[in-house]
Amino acid sequence: LADDLTAEIGLHLIGTGAGTPLNMTVGGRKTAMSCQHRFLEGYTSLLGDGGESLLEKLVGSFEILRRPAIEMPELLLQLAQKSSVALLVIGDPMQATTHVDLLLRCKDAGINTSVHHAVSAIDLVCAGIGLQSYRFGRQVTLTFPHGRHLPTSPLEMLAENLFLGLHTLVLLDLDPTGMGIEHPRPMSPREAVEVLREMDRKLRDEPPPHLDSGSEDYNERMKVRISAIAALQNVGIDDLHGVLCSNLGSTNSSICSGRLSELASEDNNGIHSLVVTGNLSEIERDALERLRP
Amino acid sequence: LADDLTAEIGLHLIGTGAGTPLNMTVGGRKTAMSCQHRFLEGYTSLLGDGGESLLEKLVGSFEILRRPAIEMPELLLQLAQKSSVALLVIGDPMQATTHVDLLLRCKDAGINTSVHHAVSAIDLVCAGIGLQSYRFGRQVTLTFPHGRHLPTSPLEMLAENLFLGLHTLVLLDLDPTGMGIEHPRPMSPREAVEVLREMDRKLRDEPPPHLDSGSEDYNERMKVRISAIAALQNVGIDDLHGVLCSNLGSTNSSICSGRLSELASEDNNGIHSLVVTGNLSEIERDALERLRP
Repeated sequence: LADDLTAEIGLHLIGTGAGTPLNMTVGGRKTAMSCQHRFLEGYTSLLGDGGESLLEKLVGSFEILRRPAIEMPELLLQLAQKSSVALLVIGDPMQATTHVDLLLRCKDAGINTSVHHAVSAIDLVCAGIGLQSYRFGRQVTLTFPHGRHLPTSPLEMLAENLFLGLHTLVLLDLDPTGMGIEHPRPMSPREAVEVLREMDRKLRDEPPPHLDSGSEDYNERMKVRISAIAALQNVGIDDLHGVLCSNLGSTNSSICSGRLSELASEDNNGIHSLVVTGNLSEIERDALERLRP
Repeated sequence: LADDLTAEIGLHLIGTGAGTPLNMTVGGRKTAMSCQHRFLEGYTSLLGDGGESLLEKLVGSFEILRRPAIEMPELLLQLAQKSSVALLVIGDPMQATTHVDLLLRCKDAGINTSVHHAVSAIDLVCAGIGLQSYRFGRQVTLTFPHGRHLPTSPLEMLAENLFLGLHTLVLLDLDPTGMGIEHPRPMSPREAVEVLREMDRKLRDEPPPHLDSGSEDYNERMKVRISAIAALQNVGIDDLHGVLCSNLGSTNSSICSGRLSELASEDNNGIHSLVVTGNLSEIERDALERLRP
């Protein structure tokens, strides 16, 4: 039963899966069980109902680390020089640059590493609503506005995906401070739509990029962006079609679809992600209407 | 230990994970174990070294079904009306339209269903080479040419991704007949690059799409495509930069990067996927050079 799997000395990045720890892999679980030290990155509240105790039953006890301990990982690396260390990450461990950086630091220090994927929010979203993963463009993340700083790039990428007929997975921030040290507070659908509206206002106020400077490639590229934004603004944020996925993978999951202005008034608690749909194929439209968790 | 998980009467789609059955989830495994009937879709040779016997150890014995039995699933549905049925799918079960269609048929017939994701080839590729999933555009699949029929859409999508600076995951076909009935024969890197070259030749020979008919949106859209293809043809297929990922997740995995003309001469056996890289961020470049399995 693959019981011969014993974790080597080093650092093992192990995804717990999104929604429930039952979404971790068999291999990840066995590795975590056999490590001498176990840490969970971040926030147990994001493990879903009863997730913390289920995770402990699956892999054994663990200590919780906040983001600073991951970004300044001297202690973690010191430990991994001499013993087997499991770093449990909620969702999939390779979705964040921090973890790639951690692997590179291990490489520099001659520390052995392994990575154990798990089912991510993206996998759950595609399945939950029956959209095909190859019909998604690049994903975007909406962060809480910090003071007057609001980058508009997420809306620009969303516009480009729509322009190409593709769906966009919009992940919502969990960390109002941007520091990874407070208790997480997931962004609500209302806040998410408001952030998109604010980006839209900002883009309307800004002068369009100059096309006379820059290389020919850059200019071509900017023309696409300008056309894509114009097409989106022609529809308007409120009238975009979206699917709101809430608490996927856990027992209180729900899915609503409609115009973004309608989804903004959905007031269910929990962790949300949003899909802005591009052109729907017939089977996608069918699945979206009829396959609900 | 979540041992209370018993599969309900109905059809359970369970991913085995790509590369090794250790990439299936804890929840998927428990569901499969507790089902009264177990079937594996397709090809045990794709489970990796010793994968078939490992899968049997993990979930119990199973019967193998070929594609026709999935696409004309009357017997499967009949069984799932009265008993708990696990359909094990290599990789992730929701990557194929066939399985969405199967879920819709169950819905029509009032049959209970559940879906258990697993780690897919896409997850393994992103991790294996340290590229960030949000920097990928839409993925494409290269199929074996059937007679004179060769759709050029995969190369057009690849061109658009590159034009937007995005990476492209290129999945290679396993089924020379296109019928899902023969023993699978994965496409080799040489064949894949040859298929891309052939699409390139075909695009050069074809007249460009007319821009005077169609809506304004359509014309804008076609202009992007024409610019993207011109930019790619300016570089040429042979000089695109790619990363060849072979047998990821199994013990004989390997990764090579270089120009496509170089990768075409890689002669390692097994199952390949190719990433054509867009603009690389600093950490991606670093990871690509230094993080190798």
